[in-house]
Amino acid sequence: MIYLDYSATTPVDKSVLEVFNKVTNEYIGNPNALYALGSKSAEVINQSTKLISDFFHVTKEEIIYTSGATESNNLAIFGVVNFYAKRPKKIITTTLEHASIKEPLAYLEKHGYEILYVDLNKDGTVNLLHLEQLLNQGVCLVTICAVDSEMGIRQPIERIGEIVKKFKTTIFHSDITQALGKININLENVDLASFSGHKIYGLKGIGGLVKKANISLLPIIMGGKSTTIYRSGTPPVALIASLAKVIKMINIDEKKIDKLNAIIKNKIKKYENVIINSTEKSIPQILNFSIYSIKPETIVHMFELEKIYLSSKTACSSKDIISHAVFSLYNDKIRASSTIRISLSNITTNEEIEKFLEVFDKIYNKLLFKIK
Amino acid sequence: MIYLDYSATTPVDKSVLEVFNKVTNEYIGNPNALYALGSKSAEVINQSTKLISDFFHVTKEEIIYTSGATESNNLAIFGVVNFYAKRPKKIITTTLEHASIKEPLAYLEKHGYEILYVDLNKDGTVNLLHLEQLLNQGVCLVTICAVDSEMGIRQPIERIGEIVKKFKTTIFHSDITQALGKININLENVDLASFSGHKIYGLKGIGGLVKKANISLLPIIMGGKSTTIYRSGTPPVALIASLAKVIKMINIDEKKIDKLNAIIKNKIKKYENVIINSTEKSIPQILNFSIYSIKPETIVHMFELEKIYLSSKTACSSKDIISHAVFSLYNDKIRASSTIRISLSNITTNEEIEKFLEVFDKIYNKLLFKIK
Repeated sequence: MIYLDYSATTPVDKSVLEVFNKVTNEYIGNPNALYALGSKSAEVINQSTKLISDFFHVTKEEIIYTSGATESNNLAIFGVVNFYAKRPKKIITTTLEHASIKEPLAYLEKHGYEILYVDLNKDGTVNLLHLEQLLNQGVCLVTICAVDSEMGIRQPIERIGEIVKKFKTTIFHSDITQALGKININLENVDLASFSGHKIYGLKGIGGLVKKANISLLPIIMGGKSTTIYRSGTPPVALIASLAKVIKMINIDEKKIDKLNAIIKNKIKKYENVIINSTEKSIPQILNFSIYSIKPETIVHMFELEKIYLSSKTACSSKDIISHAVFSLYNDKIRASSTIRISLSNITTNEEIEKFLEVFDKIYNKLLFKIK
Repeated sequence: MIYLDYSATTPVDKSVLEVFNKVTNEYIGNPNALYALGSKSAEVINQSTKLISDFFHVTKEEIIYTSGATESNNLAIFGVVNFYAKRPKKIITTTLEHASIKEPLAYLEKHGYEILYVDLNKDGTVNLLHLEQLLNQGVCLVTICAVDSEMGIRQPIERIGEIVKKFKTTIFHSDITQALGKININLENVDLASFSGHKIYGLKGIGGLVKKANISLLPIIMGGKSTTIYRSGTPPVALIASLAKVIKMINIDEKKIDKLNAIIKNKIKKYENVIINSTEKSIPQILNFSIYSIKPETIVHMFELEKIYLSSKTACSSKDIISHAVFSLYNDKIRASSTIRISLSNITTNEEIEKFLEVFDKIYNKLLFKIK
């Protein structure tokens, strides 16, 4: 099996699962309980939060645990607009966001909010001049991903944050789910940042939202003691400890993956019907391309027969026919409906890439034969 | 160690953790992915959902996975009031509900909703005549727990459901978290029911909401494919499989626990300053009592020194000084500020109870000596 869909989800690291098991078996008290059995569990959470907050260079109080990035994105958006309900009903975003950003914004659009899309440069990054123009209209929230899940374009979130900071009543949220563990992230100018465990060799069902101390939120899940007042529910001690373990293990090695990415890109772009959708600003872990006029489901299925797993767009929106992200950048419907995403990892090997290219050649020629 | 706080949280059953590990290691595909590796994960969810829905005698489509009962309660309440926003802005509830019911209702009260508290009978059950009177006012939602977490009073949810059913535009939600696995539950007349895994030997971080097909909800977490349209996010495959395992293992044995409960109750009620707060309608797994004029924290701590773990009220509201539930039933502030909850389980032994009673006697006499 060759797994090339690490941006959809990752296998769970053995040592992460070990931490989960250990904490589950050894820390049975409810962390909210008054007695020492409870405090022992609370201390596991405390240590985990210390580790995670140190990683992000924030304080422990600035970490909110959630069930994953989808919840974090919803909490950031609804939390801000409901808490700061008197601020202007305008939100800035991009065409590159995940469904868990798009859908809350679509809901808000039906309820009196105006959604402003910032222009993208040719390389897919946000046009900072246009961003500033939009901000001048008066905006309550800017939500722009650090790296998008389809083309993997790295946004200049430090610069974006700097610009947003000039507007005292505008809050900057970034979905960093696809960036965490892959590139270095600087949250200095970011007010809110969503992330999850299962994209970085962690467990599904745990994630977080970094929320800077000067920002407030109205919770979307209320009631009862928890690690913060922004998200209620019995804290899942073992999941939290497993998340800390995953974050502790982060080891960014872009160079190795850069090489693998270059090998694939340089090879496949020579095929007549292939066009690369990722740009020079894309992270090496994500390579998006289209094979003109070939349905991506067909390709995904043909690779699957060879036990190679890759994706057409993102898993979470796989029922849409067209990639809105790719269309927004290239304005080409055929290209946007034939996108394939390969996502690489630290554990991807040269041999896997060689095998992939071999199979790619076989499949391409078979399909091309059919077209001709 | 003698653990008598099973209503706060339970240790995780070994076989449940085994299922979690197996699914984590063997089903690595994102269940939303198009290829077979994804479908294999989706099939684990499908089988789990079949098992859970069979248990509740509902269809697979009527199970919504959440991060736990707190989320389920929030989804039920906000989901109903937001979806059925044009219905009367009145909600019926009791004084016995968990914080994750109370706080959403307190929020709604500030936003134009009227919260109506149904009278309780002397045994703590809902007064059905009063319920019907309140329903006649026109109400969008009734939310009444099947069993409350403090006194363990079993509400007649079948009868409550029958009465609510007469009112076509009123929806009945029940928090069944403290009832599941302890008593038989009939959801025939219940529209929505919240539950979680960690109260029944399962993992923290997974729960569900049963939502009958004829009821709709506005999600509180939106965006992207999942197991239902009511709750987005990558489905946590292994947590879901572990939840199914927990539900499969449910083995209700009230008689054994009845005996244990009777042994404790008959013994401690003879102490002069002890008064039992649980009623004849309380489930045997929960025994709530007060020791007049003694701070419950003191007692919890003294038992802790003997490695016996019990609770003052519920873990989730342990910072409140008074038990609102006990106060609402007995209208006695001293009694309501000295409550102790013991919660028993299938795995509680006679020996543990004997030891508890022995320590109880020692502590009681020591404390009483101080008072006198």
